[in-house]
Amino acid sequence: MTDREVRRDVRARRAGAVARDIAPAARATAYRQMVNPYAPLRVFSDDQVEHIHQCALAILEDSGIRVLLPQARDYYSDAGALVDSEEFMVRIGRDIVARALASAPSVVRIAAGDPARNVVIGGRNVAVVPVSGPPNVSDRIRGKRAGTLADYEDFVRLSQHFDVIHILGPSVEPLDVAPNLRHLLTVQAQLTLSDKVPFVFSRGTPQVCDSFEMIRLARGLSEEQFRGGVHCYTNINTNSPRQLDVPMSQGIIDFAREGQLAVITPFTLAGAMAPITVAGALTLAHAEALAGITLAQLVRPGAPVVYGGFTSNVDMRSGSPAFGTPEYAKAAFGTGQLARHVGLPWRSSNATASNVADEQAAYESAMSLLGAFMGGCNVLIHGAGWLEGGLTASLEKFILDVEQLQMYAEMFQPLLASDEDLGLDAIAGTPPGGHFFSTPHTLARYRDAFYVPLVSDWRNYGQWVESGSLTAGERATEIWQRTLAQFTAPPRDAAATAAMEAFVHRRSAQGGAAPVS
Amino acid sequence: MTDREVRRDVRARRAGAVARDIAPAARATAYRQMVNPYAPLRVFSDDQVEHIHQCALAILEDSGIRVLLPQARDYYSDAGALVDSEEFMVRIGRDIVARALASAPSVVRIAAGDPARNVVIGGRNVAVVPVSGPPNVSDRIRGKRAGTLADYEDFVRLSQHFDVIHILGPSVEPLDVAPNLRHLLTVQAQLTLSDKVPFVFSRGTPQVCDSFEMIRLARGLSEEQFRGGVHCYTNINTNSPRQLDVPMSQGIIDFAREGQLAVITPFTLAGAMAPITVAGALTLAHAEALAGITLAQLVRPGAPVVYGGFTSNVDMRSGSPAFGTPEYAKAAFGTGQLARHVGLPWRSSNATASNVADEQAAYESAMSLLGAFMGGCNVLIHGAGWLEGGLTASLEKFILDVEQLQMYAEMFQPLLASDEDLGLDAIAGTPPGGHFFSTPHTLARYRDAFYVPLVSDWRNYGQWVESGSLTAGERATEIWQRTLAQFTAPPRDAAATAAMEAFVHRRSAQGGAAPVS
Repeated sequence: MTDREVRRDVRARRAGAVARDIAPAARATAYRQMVNPYAPLRVFSDDQVEHIHQCALAILEDSGIRVLLPQARDYYSDAGALVDSEEFMVRIGRDIVARALASAPSVVRIAAGDPARNVVIGGRNVAVVPVSGPPNVSDRIRGKRAGTLADYEDFVRLSQHFDVIHILGPSVEPLDVAPNLRHLLTVQAQLTLSDKVPFVFSRGTPQVCDSFEMIRLARGLSEEQFRGGVHCYTNINTNSPRQLDVPMSQGIIDFAREGQLAVITPFTLAGAMAPITVAGALTLAHAEALAGITLAQLVRPGAPVVYGGFTSNVDMRSGSPAFGTPEYAKAAFGTGQLARHVGLPWRSSNATASNVADEQAAYESAMSLLGAFMGGCNVLIHGAGWLEGGLTASLEKFILDVEQLQMYAEMFQPLLASDEDLGLDAIAGTPPGGHFFSTPHTLARYRDAFYVPLVSDWRNYGQWVESGSLTAGERATEIWQRTLAQFTAPPRDAAATAAMEAFVHRRSAQGGAAPVS
Repeated sequence: MTDREVRRDVRARRAGAVARDIAPAARATAYRQMVNPYAPLRVFSDDQVEHIHQCALAILEDSGIRVLLPQARDYYSDAGALVDSEEFMVRIGRDIVARALASAPSVVRIAAGDPARNVVIGGRNVAVVPVSGPPNVSDRIRGKRAGTLADYEDFVRLSQHFDVIHILGPSVEPLDVAPNLRHLLTVQAQLTLSDKVPFVFSRGTPQVCDSFEMIRLARGLSEEQFRGGVHCYTNINTNSPRQLDVPMSQGIIDFAREGQLAVITPFTLAGAMAPITVAGALTLAHAEALAGITLAQLVRPGAPVVYGGFTSNVDMRSGSPAFGTPEYAKAAFGTGQLARHVGLPWRSSNATASNVADEQAAYESAMSLLGAFMGGCNVLIHGAGWLEGGLTASLEKFILDVEQLQMYAEMFQPLLASDEDLGLDAIAGTPPGGHFFSTPHTLARYRDAFYVPLVSDWRNYGQWVESGSLTAGERATEIWQRTLAQFTAPPRDAAATAAMEAFVHRRSAQGGAAPVS
């Protein structure tokens, strides 16, 4: 028989089988702590990785990096780096970098509001962060528009709901909130609508201090307790090529000083702000990441950091950034090798350049996820909802991405292969041309044997047409609407929340804190 | 800066850069022979693989497989297998299987009409076959309908056009052609519209003999020359569990006798015609594949065979087959391990259960491709255009799949990392915060640095809206229409073609050959 004839045969035979009468129970999933069992894919030999590392060290030593914040230059200078106070160039000796890498922890444990939501970053663990930072939001009902606090809150709700999202992110920028109040209201939304690990923007020390205080109040932590553990994180982007600006340098210092996590991510587009080759862009990115990581360790040896990578290529016809390309995946594999070479957890991204949550968005995200997960990443930022090269947070894309994330989480589950799992008795006991629907081996397992999808529709064509011929994107609309409508915030300590909200009220009345740029 | 701010910054900076003035040249691609450089992903330990192999041998030895064709039973019996002539059960000793595996070639070379289209199957080589066998066809213009010869020919044209498709497939069933003539007209279409390797259905010896004769005539080969090389292939599905039917057994014999390639593929749906566990379904599939491969080797030691795997799971709520699931990917990784364990090339599939070429089709295909390519497959059947669990061949899905296939082909290209590739001079020579658009390193490479997509639209949102806000699926319609409109058949020997067509004419006048079932 051909595949197709077999397929038809299966349909015919199952009509008389027990499957039609059974319905699976709710499945226990293990999405809260994803552990990747696969050996990471590699694009470089070990020698090439070491050579790129040495080239990056030479770049930092010979050419240096421009650091715009005087205080940051002082840290480097005190450690023995050569600082040019006119050009702000900092040349960092490889011994300084080596000491920094020796003191940076290889595994970071972050405390959430609910201990069951605590996250381990490093090793084979994988943590997912949703879309982070677009100015726009879009969905199929309301179209594309500027982000608001209400949208931000909706993304916190969705991020809280799905177990496969482990850490909160700045989802969409609430442009309806004054810049000096945004940190207060976004951190408040995270601490009241979710018990997952919150994100804090690095937009200057005053905002960071406010945010830390809110977390201490909401979590009931003393300053010492806060400093003694990791309770939040920020993302630091270098200004490629070879520059650390004021808020980013300040963010590294603020977070290191308080022992909070900084994900340090050069954003290197091959052919634009980085060499046109993937290997060249990775060399530059590696140098920049090492410079930022070194600063954190100079501020506080042992400060938690994550080695971030965000390397893609531009479309050489238009200069537009492209994401989820083959080059992007190869860059991800290579970044993972470099991060492991220096013994640090690695952050990657789920990216696409598509302007709409369509088939392109799906396959570009699939390619990004392949690069990230099969490259062995520990933190995936922009994990759900990122669209249009990061200019839009999409609600449908969020749901479609959650489906792909859950599929990876399931693929990470071990494949059981004991003799009982192999079902040898069932095989011996089922006659040629028969079926396994009613064997004891099947009946003992059918309720939770397989992944139950969020969006995918596996019904036959006739049933699918009868139910309205909805595409996956259209079904995603129903899912985010239903999820938001049914959302209930997790329980929280009333007094602690009140104290945090009183702080927000007081600081708001004082005018908040302007972002530093 | 946040990722988003960096992103905006890139857009602003590139406005003044040279990129806007340059247009890439046509890129030389290496899609005609894909070679996979990545280490295959694994779900089993070596011990587990060996244990599953031993369990499969025990199944063949103790329980056996039912073989419906007397001639096939005779081959097994002559080799020492125990044959029950009432139940048609054949119990095959492990020594017989071991001898068969020792004689089966690990690499198969297939000759195409144009030697530049010859295909190597095995090792790290990857060959792609389009959708194979659905009764229906669909596209956005004409909707879903029964397949015709005209549709079949269109798929041959598309398969010929794209270099990332290496081998022809039975695409869609031409239901407007009488069953006794279908083999003649489909093989004729392949030999006149394409110079790639043709597919031959195993629907009984008379049809197979006709098809072989057509290939000999069109390629100008004597019977001896034909038998001395591999010039076509077929796909053999077992009737899981544990049964080989008449046309499939006959196909194995017919192809082995003439030295042509048989891809032997058990189709095992975990929870339906196979144990509900992936490991159990693979154990059964392995036993069935070994039975078929053994038959081929008993007919002619050294006969070219491919170890086929097509294991997925059913939806336990409805009994519907599911494809491109996490279980599907794990099954693919495991199948690859089993195929390598017995030293044979491995065939996998690009499958989805979606009823339409939408986001679900894209991400389920992405998961199938991950299982296949990152599991190390050598032949990918249903590579482009398979929809609705194999019941429909979709023209848009074909184009969207070609994009994903090309992305993998590019990802398989080595990542160059010489010192010149790293662009160390460009990095040293580009000031902090500058750009690389006009460095000599960029200018020497920009014309062909990156993959140029087939479907993906990387323009910004405004440009995309201005051009009609088309989704990737809608753009795919334009692409298949344009490709078909511009198609030119490859050159071929006029006399040989005339001889082949005369044969078709004569055999058609004689009534062709009825399929055997």
